[in-house]
Amino acid sequence: VESSFVHAQRVARLATADANGCPHVVPICFAFDGSRFFSVLDEKPKRVADRGLRRVRNIQENAKAAIVFDRYDEDWSRLGFVLVRGRAILLPPGEGRHDQAIESLRARYPQYGSMAIETRPVIELTPESVTSWGHLG
Amino acid sequence: VESSFVHAQRVARLATADANGCPHVVPICFAFDGSRFFSVLDEKPKRVADRGLRRVRNIQENAKAAIVFDRYDEDWSRLGFVLVRGRAILLPPGEGRHDQAIESLRARYPQYGSMAIETRPVIELTPESVTSWGHLG
Repeated sequence: VESSFVHAQRVARLATADANGCPHVVPICFAFDGSRFFSVLDEKPKRVADRGLRRVRNIQENAKAAIVFDRYDEDWSRLGFVLVRGRAILLPPGEGRHDQAIESLRARYPQYGSMAIETRPVIELTPESVTSWGHLG
Repeated sequence: VESSFVHAQRVARLATADANGCPHVVPICFAFDGSRFFSVLDEKPKRVADRGLRRVRNIQENAKAAIVFDRYDEDWSRLGFVLVRGRAILLPPGEGRHDQAIESLRARYPQYGSMAIETRPVIELTPESVTSWGHLG
């Protein structure tokens, strides 16, 4: 149930924290290979290099991360979420798992087809705990 | 622009972290009074008292928190988010700001009309920084 709920979501939210425990959260597109979650740094902010992105700095300082997958509905009996907590690392381009992640992301999101994401770092989150709440059906 | 984008969202995601910097993130319904954000602990888990909720324990250990307001669209030129970072506290029932928060939440969410949220603690987040990305129009 949790796995099919997660797969059905098009967007999730990734929370990280810096070395001082200051949290940060952004929406992400993601792929899930059945054991790990992948998200690519597709944004190209004009003034910020990859290493300057807060989520990247946070992961380098503190690997602990969380992703929430949720559904909102005005019928609150249909609300539900799955919270995955674990450890995140950055996969550089050229690594085997990086290339698989890019393939999975392109399979889920045709929008990535025209973007050179194969040259971009991937965030890989390995779950350590999964909790869920509400209605996931 | 940021303010009207935020008001238009029905759900946001609240990130907190414990004293060890371990992040946590959950979907929340919220109200915004123009300067602070409010969310009520409306869940009633069977086995967990309010103080046992992770977001509550985290805020008690570490006031730093973040909320992201975002819009997903398959047309990625329409993606956008507003990230608010600041400090969170718990408002107990009976406090003036608590009662105003409950009123604002009921005005935004008719679903709260039949729920005894006036007896529940409110999380108040005071922003210290706001960043935005993408298309907010």
